[in-house]
Amino acid sequence: MVPEKTRVVIVGGGFGGLYAAQNLKDPALEVTLLDRRNFHLFQPLLYQVATGGLSPGDICSPLRAILNRRKNIRVLLAEVTDLDVEKRRVILSDGAVDYDILLVAAGVRHSYFGHEEWESLAPGLKTVEDAVEIRRRIFLAFEAAERDPDPERRREWLTFVVVGGGPTGVELAGALAELSKDTLKGDFRSINPAEAQILLLEGAKQILPAYPLELSQNAAAVLKRLGVRVRTETLVTEVYPQYLLARSGGNGEKIPSRTVLWAAGVQASSLGRILSDRAGASRDRIGRVIVEPDLSLPGHPEIFVIGDLAHFSHQTGEPLPGVAPVAMQQGRYAARRVRQFLRGESSPPFRYKDRGKMAVIGRAAAVADLNWIRLSGFSAWLVWLFIHLMNLVEYENRVLVLIQWAWNYFTRNRGARLITGKDPFPLSIKEP
Amino acid sequence: MVPEKTRVVIVGGGFGGLYAAQNLKDPALEVTLLDRRNFHLFQPLLYQVATGGLSPGDICSPLRAILNRRKNIRVLLAEVTDLDVEKRRVILSDGAVDYDILLVAAGVRHSYFGHEEWESLAPGLKTVEDAVEIRRRIFLAFEAAERDPDPERRREWLTFVVVGGGPTGVELAGALAELSKDTLKGDFRSINPAEAQILLLEGAKQILPAYPLELSQNAAAVLKRLGVRVRTETLVTEVYPQYLLARSGGNGEKIPSRTVLWAAGVQASSLGRILSDRAGASRDRIGRVIVEPDLSLPGHPEIFVIGDLAHFSHQTGEPLPGVAPVAMQQGRYAARRVRQFLRGESSPPFRYKDRGKMAVIGRAAAVADLNWIRLSGFSAWLVWLFIHLMNLVEYENRVLVLIQWAWNYFTRNRGARLITGKDPFPLSIKEP
Repeated sequence: MVPEKTRVVIVGGGFGGLYAAQNLKDPALEVTLLDRRNFHLFQPLLYQVATGGLSPGDICSPLRAILNRRKNIRVLLAEVTDLDVEKRRVILSDGAVDYDILLVAAGVRHSYFGHEEWESLAPGLKTVEDAVEIRRRIFLAFEAAERDPDPERRREWLTFVVVGGGPTGVELAGALAELSKDTLKGDFRSINPAEAQILLLEGAKQILPAYPLELSQNAAAVLKRLGVRVRTETLVTEVYPQYLLARSGGNGEKIPSRTVLWAAGVQASSLGRILSDRAGASRDRIGRVIVEPDLSLPGHPEIFVIGDLAHFSHQTGEPLPGVAPVAMQQGRYAARRVRQFLRGESSPPFRYKDRGKMAVIGRAAAVADLNWIRLSGFSAWLVWLFIHLMNLVEYENRVLVLIQWAWNYFTRNRGARLITGKDPFPLSIKEP
Repeated sequence: MVPEKTRVVIVGGGFGGLYAAQNLKDPALEVTLLDRRNFHLFQPLLYQVATGGLSPGDICSPLRAILNRRKNIRVLLAEVTDLDVEKRRVILSDGAVDYDILLVAAGVRHSYFGHEEWESLAPGLKTVEDAVEIRRRIFLAFEAAERDPDPERRREWLTFVVVGGGPTGVELAGALAELSKDTLKGDFRSINPAEAQILLLEGAKQILPAYPLELSQNAAAVLKRLGVRVRTETLVTEVYPQYLLARSGGNGEKIPSRTVLWAAGVQASSLGRILSDRAGASRDRIGRVIVEPDLSLPGHPEIFVIGDLAHFSHQTGEPLPGVAPVAMQQGRYAARRVRQFLRGESSPPFRYKDRGKMAVIGRAAAVADLNWIRLSGFSAWLVWLFIHLMNLVEYENRVLVLIQWAWNYFTRNRGARLITGKDPFPLSIKEP
């Protein structure tokens, strides 16, 4: 018997979980949002933090502040370690929470395809801490080059390799190129930062492989103009502190570099495995949970999986991409589905309304495929900017990011290029 | 023989070092600015980062960006480990730099009066990392209280003790009171953040002991109105993870608290000891270097010590306070003195032009003694805001901080209240 108040538990405060929570307005629902972090992160702009254009505070919003007025929602800072689907209970590292309906929106993290030992040498970009660490490495590399008298080591410091030519890799490489060509101009006395080499390595035949060919080619052309060396059909085989090994068409190659950034692959959060162990969920190759047309788990109509963690292939036969719009729409759908489920109503299956794909390449250049129109260059960049600003959940952040953006645009500045966190000494960060 | 270009080396990019560098415009001077960090930190607003009102990026400016156009200045990210005053050489952890003239502006760090083991239990506020760590502890304490079913532990989580009633302690306590009373209102479901206890402990007879009595009393009254319990003539004798011991008028007391913040004392940077060992400098009780009327070291007219690290008592018999205006004025003076020294000219002694003292207590309350007028309340706060904004070295930061401030003022919000850095689990951060 369902108690008078139905307890809905949401795991994860990313786009999926937050949009679900915001749409669960029924006061008969007692909603609990669990997250390991006390803030929602606007992940599409994380590469800007990693390259010193924005501060973490600009793209993070405290979950409690967002949901402050929603008195039927409780936010708990908590780490989910297990599920008990019989007792309908979420097990935390320090307690448990009971549910009638469970929404799992725990997302994905980066994957090194079995080479987890590469993580310390080639950090990925998923969390605020990742972004601050990448920022630290990028700016430390320029500082080390300025100090290093050895020309060969200096070249290693000034070579940046981005592994993976999806949107994140393209955005990182574009931002790095601008950084070295524009922002840092005149900042150094011994080196010319514009001499930095930026390499973008992609295993497929083209960068942005999920995009229409025309846009991919466009993006590659813009990157080339910015000075990025794009290498497609190239796979990384080893990563070492001062170089990496890559294979391209049967040929091995050694690429000297002291800064390797990883944007090559993702794997499901550990919640995927837990759902598989406890609720018999099937998973795909990268651990995502295969869901029903209504986003529920087979055999568990009370459990929904949304966002990047969900493998939903009922619409096109292919799984939907792991992008923010999918998660937002699934969050909204799941909230509606929960209300219908409680009334015993059936629902039409989830359908993703694809409003387009875009990637930003530089200061005023982007590519966008809005389905009804394809844009590139400045117009695409304006559309990209507008959409991203409008989706920042807090008004304050929108204003701040817009000002930062305008400032950065006109001055080519990146004021947040701070080396913080770990002690920067010794400068040779990647040596043991 | 002095070579054609005179090599001036500045250690430290705080107010003293940066203002000296900015005033060493003579192209015949080859200036090298050494700092462990790649940015200048606007320390007077650090307590705002610690309490979630501003982001680190708002109050930090990359040194290279500030000095970009000054082609006679080199910035090096470097750690000074020793001096060779015979060879006129600064020894770095990974190299050395030769000087003809040396300006040391290495500042101070916090002191635990011989109880360095308290540092992990009662962090002080000197660096950006300190501020982010204090922010983490403050907001984690509220999160832990929300989750903790035990009323006694909940009270420990909701008791914040600030040790030291100088400007930093007063500003921290005031900001904490506003945070709990205003900002977090409605954010929690199990606790009422307004029930948090904020204690400010001061050893002297009054808080702000260096200020005129009228202002101290004023500040104490405003803090009381904000709900801060001010305890003067109270000394901390022990700090433990869940409580601290204090002594007041011969009586010992146990104060349960899981968040203790240290604003009680400072000691000179290790450069003070190095100057004493290598150049025979005399030091005061807290390790500051006693300087001549022209800020040089006795017997070493080529070495100047400025800012918090300098003990200058030629003006009033008392050492000048360790505040930003003293450092700025000494930086400017030292730059002028260097030019005169090279021309063989003598200089009038340094004189600090004291434009006043101020401390901010809350959202729209401050106390200020501008020598010709004493203000408190909103007018003092406006003066404080204006002076601080004008002294942020980059225009971008001024605009951003002003907007944040206006936003925070009208909404009582603190959008940067992020728990970042170390993993937040287990929540019981102070237990072993």
